[in-house]
Amino acid sequence: MTTTTPYAVFDPTLDLELRREVDVPPRLVWRAWTEPELLKQWFTPAPWKTTACELDLRPGGKFRTVMEGPNGERHDSTGCVLFVIPEKLMLFTDALGPGYRPTGSAFMSASVEISPTAAGTLYVARAFHKDEEARQQHEEMGFHQGWGTALDQLVALAKRL
Amino acid sequence: MTTTTPYAVFDPTLDLELRREVDVPPRLVWRAWTEPELLKQWFTPAPWKTTACELDLRPGGKFRTVMEGPNGERHDSTGCVLFVIPEKLMLFTDALGPGYRPTGSAFMSASVEISPTAAGTLYVARAFHKDEEARQQHEEMGFHQGWGTALDQLVALAKRL
Repeated sequence: MTTTTPYAVFDPTLDLELRREVDVPPRLVWRAWTEPELLKQWFTPAPWKTTACELDLRPGGKFRTVMEGPNGERHDSTGCVLFVIPEKLMLFTDALGPGYRPTGSAFMSASVEISPTAAGTLYVARAFHKDEEARQQHEEMGFHQGWGTALDQLVALAKRL
Repeated sequence: MTTTTPYAVFDPTLDLELRREVDVPPRLVWRAWTEPELLKQWFTPAPWKTTACELDLRPGGKFRTVMEGPNGERHDSTGCVLFVIPEKLMLFTDALGPGYRPTGSAFMSASVEISPTAAGTLYVARAFHKDEEARQQHEEMGFHQGWGTALDQLVALAKRL
């Protein structure tokens, strides 16, 4: 089964998806994703921390995160915003950097789509990979648990906003 | 010197530019770039030919060209449309494929900007590279002559439309 949006085509053999309804409104989910000071508070499952975030929320804009682990690990990743529909959709990739410049290495493109429901928000986060091997690697790195725990943290933060 | 557009930042140490005023209107330059049957007629300096072209002109859309040389060479390249302002700007990359999926290899992103002048069109085509080495490689492949000759062919075609 392949589903289509106007912007990206989800292929379950290549891609990964976290889909969950949460009991906070889309407006707060969007703020948590797009305000760097908020993103830093939920983006990385504890005990990892997101210690820096830069987000220029427009096509071609910079999206940088620095994630640090409990044993001194440090991942500094700079990608590019691809597409934005405020309070509905953000698409970004690490195949490109700011201004769409190729990075020379690519792990994934990703989308976050949110839509209002009676109870709050339908949250759909997707990671798009080059091939099955990359998808499997991401799955084994703990995509579902990692992105799920981060979403728990996002919801807890949204409830304090 | 670094110049900025809303979408991409041109860095002369990393990037290449062809800038020329041509005596055909923006509307026809745009048609030549965006209608695959027209693009095939000018895109590749003779004796190379562009034997296939697919262009889904929207963010995330497929941009594929097949270029064939006089000695049986064949380059089949599939990239992704990034940004479109009709009759003004097209941005695309080979770092991503259709639906923004990473390709795993990237040579460049590119922009074509056109704007009306008294005599016709100011045509600015830019190639954005990962690093100086990639820019130099592209320059030595004959960027200026190749893109310049292709533009001559585009103008000749536009005058027949």
